[in-house]
Amino acid sequence: MPQSTRLGRHVVIEDGVSIGEHVVIGHHSVILQGTQIRDHVTIGSNCVVGIQPAANERMRKDSDAERNLVIEAGTKIGNLVSLYAGSTIGETVFIGDHASIRENVQIEEASVIGRAAIIELNTTIGKNCTVQTQAYVTGDTTLEDNVFIGPCVSMSNDKYMGAQAYSLKGPIIKQGAKIGNNASLLPGITIGSHAIVGAGAVVTKDIGANTIVAGVPAKKIDA
Amino acid sequence: MPQSTRLGRHVVIEDGVSIGEHVVIGHHSVILQGTQIRDHVTIGSNCVVGIQPAANERMRKDSDAERNLVIEAGTKIGNLVSLYAGSTIGETVFIGDHASIRENVQIEEASVIGRAAIIELNTTIGKNCTVQTQAYVTGDTTLEDNVFIGPCVSMSNDKYMGAQAYSLKGPIIKQGAKIGNNASLLPGITIGSHAIVGAGAVVTKDIGANTIVAGVPAKKIDA
Amino acid sequence: MPQSTRLGRHVVIEDGVSIGEHVVIGHHSVILQGTQIRDHVTIGSNCVVGIQPAANERMRKDSDAERNLVIEAGTKIGNLVSLYAGSTIGETVFIGDHASIRENVQIEEASVIGRAAIIELNTTIGKNCTVQTQAYVTGDTTLEDNVFIGPCVSMSNDKYMGAQAYSLKGPIIKQGAKIGNNASLLPGITIGSHAIVGAGAVVTKDIGANTIVAGVPAKKIDA
Repeated sequence: MPQSTRLGRHVVIEDGVSIGEHVVIGHHSVILQGTQIRDHVTIGSNCVVGIQPAANERMRKDSDAERNLVIEAGTKIGNLVSLYAGSTIGETVFIGDHASIRENVQIEEASVIGRAAIIELNTTIGKNCTVQTQAYVTGDTTLEDNVFIGPCVSMSNDKYMGAQAYSLKGPIIKQGAKIGNNASLLPGITIGSHAIVGAGAVVTKDIGANTIVAGVPAKKIDA
Repeated sequence: MPQSTRLGRHVVIEDGVSIGEHVVIGHHSVILQGTQIRDHVTIGSNCVVGIQPAANERMRKDSDAERNLVIEAGTKIGNLVSLYAGSTIGETVFIGDHASIRENVQIEEASVIGRAAIIELNTTIGKNCTVQTQAYVTGDTTLEDNVFIGPCVSMSNDKYMGAQAYSLKGPIIKQGAKIGNNASLLPGITIGSHAIVGAGAVVTKDIGANTIVAGVPAKKIDA
Repeated sequence: MPQSTRLGRHVVIEDGVSIGEHVVIGHHSVILQGTQIRDHVTIGSNCVVGIQPAANERMRKDSDAERNLVIEAGTKIGNLVSLYAGSTIGETVFIGDHASIRENVQIEEASVIGRAAIIELNTTIGKNCTVQTQAYVTGDTTLEDNVFIGPCVSMSNDKYMGAQAYSLKGPIIKQGAKIGNNASLLPGITIGSHAIVGAGAVVTKDIGANTIVAGVPAKKIDA
């Protein structure tokens, strides 16, 4: 560990962790085996970082999830956060308190993941995205660059809710689209670039670029 | 404590805890007085397990909540989880990170409680249920076997929102019913067996067996 | 620290913390610099208390957030909670497990903040309010006395979702108003005193006193 590292009290760092220069880790945080922390990363208190996926017999397992967690330079992670192995958190990302990010997630630079937001497995988040507080980004989802996901937005990736075999598919949200607070997105839909979804809308179909929708089910409205 | 126990660092185990064979407990987790952990249970890091209920003067107290927490064999508990005394978590249950389960809850075998899901007091969850990420299962609720609660589903158990004396009553969700993501269920309603509630629906009345509903308020639709 | 203090194991108390009489702090909790804890406060396990705000370059910073966190007498704080510096939690308040309260928040006496509820910055909460489980109270919001916010209620304070310069403005919720579970409130709206918003409603306009609304968008209904 470099001399420039600042550790809180009772920090647990397992074997096989790499730590860059000028890293700060708060009290009681746990850095699990294989985690790679680059320069100038800060991690708050009581976090658990680098978790290997677990499951019971009824849950999906991801075979290649034994890879490491990488936290790129300049990223800030809050308190009481959980981060899984097999994901890469890009440079100067911000991750709020109580957030959780699962395995095989890629988050590109300068994106913000809000407080208590959850990012499920196999999801890609572009640059400069904002995922607001308590938002739920389901598995197998794509957010292109500059996407805004409002607070408490909900998504799903399983059309049959476990009842049939189905290739799980989250939404595809194109560049610059904005999703209002507490909107619900159904599995596999595409939200076009710079589209706007109103607060509380339930989006059941693809939405074209530059379109504004609202309501249940969501319909096109004038700006 | 059996020799087969694997403890992380700085684990706190209070007096009066019983631990079965081959139990694994992650770093910084807290096992409070009276907790009973059976064989082959795994608990992640930074959990708090066996909490005695507290309240301020305006909140409901539960007189018989001094009983123990029991975690049955083969159950897996994530990281940063809170579990209360007076509940029983059945065999081979999975409880995701950041989840919270209150007092006097019964969860039967092989059910999955998702990441950041919350199960309030006096609730019963049957076998093979799935309560998805961030779902809110209110107090005094019944989930029969094989129920699916989608991500971010919301329930309430207080028709008068604190304004009148009312016997608190959560929903009754019958066997095999499926609730879509971010749907809202009102107090005391019954969802019939194998019924399906669409994403974002607001369910204000009882729903019959094998019925599909959607919308605000939720109405019957064809499959 | 007074002799009457009861500390759990591995508690971290930084310099410059003041602690009143008969304070109880659970295992692994972290009390950061400058926190002021009054008499008869209880704090659960694995909490992080007195956090200084952080941000990345794309996020709002609050210049005067270097002030202390004050927790007034008789207040009870759950487990795995995060509380920020620059806020005041009034007397005999209850804060549930996994809740998060940001900087420059004032909460008056006897209010209840539910499990996993989130209170964003610059918000004022009056006396005897209830903010239920998983509710999201956005920044720049005012709750007068005796307000009830149901479980999973969502709010927003940014009309343009980051797209335009806009003075951020949360809802104003007048005395005794009640918001049903999973309702969505748009930025800057006023909910009149003793108004009632139905479960799952999307409130897009001001609501008068003593009015009942429901639906998407929310419209006036008879009681």
